[in-house]
Amino acid sequence: MQPYELTLAHAAQQIRARRLSPVELVDSVLERIDQVDPHVEAYVAVTAEQARGAAREAEQEAARGMFRGPLHGVPAGLKDLIDVAGSPTSASSRVRAGHRAAADSTVAARLRAAGSVLVGKTHTHEFAYGLTTPQTGNAWDRGRVAGGSSGGGGVAGAAGAAPFALGTDTGGSIRVPAALNGAVGFKPTYGLVPRHGVTSLSWSLDHVGPITRTVEDAALVLTVLDGHDPRDPASLNTPALDHRPEQEPDLAGVRVGVPRNYYFDHVDPEVEAAVRGGIAQLEVLGARTVEIDIPMTRYIQATQWGLMAPEATAYHEGTLRTVPELYQEDVRILLEAGELMGAGDYLRAQRSRTLMQEEWARLLEKVDVIAAPAVPLTAVEAGQESITWSDGSTEAVSDAYVRLSSPANITGVPALSVPVGHDTAGMPIGMAQFSRRPGNRTSNPRVT
Amino acid sequence: MQPYELTLAHAAQQIRARRLSPVELVDSVLERIDQVDPHVEAYVAVTAEQARGAAREAEQEAARGMFRGPLHGVPAGLKDLIDVAGSPTSASSRVRAGHRAAADSTVAARLRAAGSVLVGKTHTHEFAYGLTTPQTGNAWDRGRVAGGSSGGGGVAGAAGAAPFALGTDTGGSIRVPAALNGAVGFKPTYGLVPRHGVTSLSWSLDHVGPITRTVEDAALVLTVLDGHDPRDPASLNTPALDHRPEQEPDLAGVRVGVPRNYYFDHVDPEVEAAVRGGIAQLEVLGARTVEIDIPMTRYIQATQWGLMAPEATAYHEGTLRTVPELYQEDVRILLEAGELMGAGDYLRAQRSRTLMQEEWARLLEKVDVIAAPAVPLTAVEAGQESITWSDGSTEAVSDAYVRLSSPANITGVPALSVPVGHDTAGMPIGMAQFSRRPGNRTSNPRVT
Repeated sequence: MQPYELTLAHAAQQIRARRLSPVELVDSVLERIDQVDPHVEAYVAVTAEQARGAAREAEQEAARGMFRGPLHGVPAGLKDLIDVAGSPTSASSRVRAGHRAAADSTVAARLRAAGSVLVGKTHTHEFAYGLTTPQTGNAWDRGRVAGGSSGGGGVAGAAGAAPFALGTDTGGSIRVPAALNGAVGFKPTYGLVPRHGVTSLSWSLDHVGPITRTVEDAALVLTVLDGHDPRDPASLNTPALDHRPEQEPDLAGVRVGVPRNYYFDHVDPEVEAAVRGGIAQLEVLGARTVEIDIPMTRYIQATQWGLMAPEATAYHEGTLRTVPELYQEDVRILLEAGELMGAGDYLRAQRSRTLMQEEWARLLEKVDVIAAPAVPLTAVEAGQESITWSDGSTEAVSDAYVRLSSPANITGVPALSVPVGHDTAGMPIGMAQFSRRPGNRTSNPRVT
Repeated sequence: MQPYELTLAHAAQQIRARRLSPVELVDSVLERIDQVDPHVEAYVAVTAEQARGAAREAEQEAARGMFRGPLHGVPAGLKDLIDVAGSPTSASSRVRAGHRAAADSTVAARLRAAGSVLVGKTHTHEFAYGLTTPQTGNAWDRGRVAGGSSGGGGVAGAAGAAPFALGTDTGGSIRVPAALNGAVGFKPTYGLVPRHGVTSLSWSLDHVGPITRTVEDAALVLTVLDGHDPRDPASLNTPALDHRPEQEPDLAGVRVGVPRNYYFDHVDPEVEAAVRGGIAQLEVLGARTVEIDIPMTRYIQATQWGLMAPEATAYHEGTLRTVPELYQEDVRILLEAGELMGAGDYLRAQRSRTLMQEEWARLLEKVDVIAAPAVPLTAVEAGQESITWSDGSTEAVSDAYVRLSSPANITGVPALSVPVGHDTAGMPIGMAQFSRRPGNRTSNPRVT
């Protein structure tokens, strides 16, 4: 087994025991990047020299007996919306040519302080406004989409090109690429991870979170990212928690909500079968399933778009006027469409969000977790724009990819995607889990 | 002295001492209404029989030694946006013809429970969307405007046609008519008084509060209105307080902020002189004045309108489509203009509000209270649409009346208007006081 193949937790163990050196690990990861990235293009930029320097420092610290925690000496890829001091934040866009971040984002600074080694910036669908990340190929079949918008991070995590990556998630952008590449993607509670220094798509829906190979690894990263930062106005002012799981998690008595509606409608039969298999496995481990009804489903798409479109357009207002030709056409069209939205649509979306938050909070009192498909279909061929369901209806690929994940962005509840198998074409299938917010964390986006 | 001339506190004292009967008091107030209301038209409807019935009950309770508190047996006028079970809530509009409220609003129910006797519904500028209340004449000169939108309440309070009234305030609608008629008007902290059952103008700016003859009376009414009600989503979930002042309020050490900018720009010299006289009086009583700078003044008007216009239009969406001809022209034009507002304008107004809230909170750490003119000019002649300032610039009358009060709606801070004299035409002048929100009350409207 090569060092790049280790999970974060396992690598951390080896580093702590001084059986693995951070330099050895980063060299192995950089070699793996050299090997796979020409095929999948997960990275916008690899900062090999800085990474080797940081790894040497981590090694020297380890030699002195200093161990900063489980991320000590562990390489990471950061979605290229996340500022790293001195590096460009390209947002995978020509609009950002010549950009250079003056300071670290909060999350980059926290990773560094925890000893993590930043190896490079991973591709995003341009400015995070899409679900495919067309520059990047899927880790399992480079002719298929990586998913998006954190496509580079999903592919890097799954392909061994980063032990873990950070993504951002506004409608599913961490969980969708995680699901399509067979990685674990976690979108935390709204406000838990500060977004200072992270390019915004839609500030009332944006989240930062980890893409990893295991749930334990996601918990290790989250523990480092959690914590208040007043420079993000939505940052929760609550004590940071240790999110690492207990050694022997016990599912006895855990109530798993299985949606009767919405989450299994227009879902590929192979995806449904794998997810139902995953739910059966939870039952084997002691959980009890409860049938539930997802509330307000006909408002989900309108609420997501009603919030996202005007907020995204407001962010790009300046450059949309001065350099519209530098945007990719799909993104420019979405941004320009946002200019036409009326104030009434935006305020109705805000009111609808408030109601959905209340309904989901009630639902998540009845069950501890909701289990469902993460995305209704696996990775499609690059360039495929729509899919046809068995009832003859068609749907845009990006609408399909976002539809099951966006409720967690609207409501702010934490949401996870975990791999639960592969379809007959060999492509990974993701199962989503939604759970309630921690009790004292209520500073969610509210209509006023 | 006739009973209708008593302040609320004095009437309460007399009733408690059984030197005044609630029936005697309500008869005196109803007689006063008969005498003055044909001239000023403060009331939409007077419910004399119900009022006499309620007064008899209050009297019987008093005879049994039961005394519900300082509002026991004291008549009140309610702005006709406030639901009273079984009565129409006309909003002074033809759109509401045939309306009948099924249940009491929270504030009407609380007044009744406190023993208050509802004598009638007072005029509002149609649906509260204006600063003049054209149906109603000023208490001091019926050829001049009453101010608005709670014009009926301001006039009734000042003219002895109600010991106190309830108004609503979205940009100054309690404080403006109080100032123009020589009454006390108080807009509480946002969320302190529940708005359930009160017709909305703009939910993120709407407040309910008292119009009285003294500050002590305002505190007595506020103590009854304060308290959480989950049926208003913005209602603060904090313990209700007793707002009655100490017997000997001490101003020693109180820091009074006197604005260097904005609040004395384009202000009538007689108004300025009276307000500066009021401030000097505070100094005589021991307060210390501090010069302050009002933040973000160029955003005040755009923020107020950017929030109010789309929220008002959203509320009227249905009737604006079906019965536009039933609205007064000024209100219909404002509502239709709101339909043209873009989502970007609304979200920019929300963001600007968040910044203004932060800036005012910082300002109100430096001083305990801000003293300034309530309105820049006294009551104008009915029908006058604009005024010309000494530098030759002109301003719409309603823009002038709203400009000094709306910052308290945007920021949610409590704001009071108190009489400080009369101009040479004999018209009352109001001084405003703004103070900080109570420490634990932070659930203000926030952009997310």
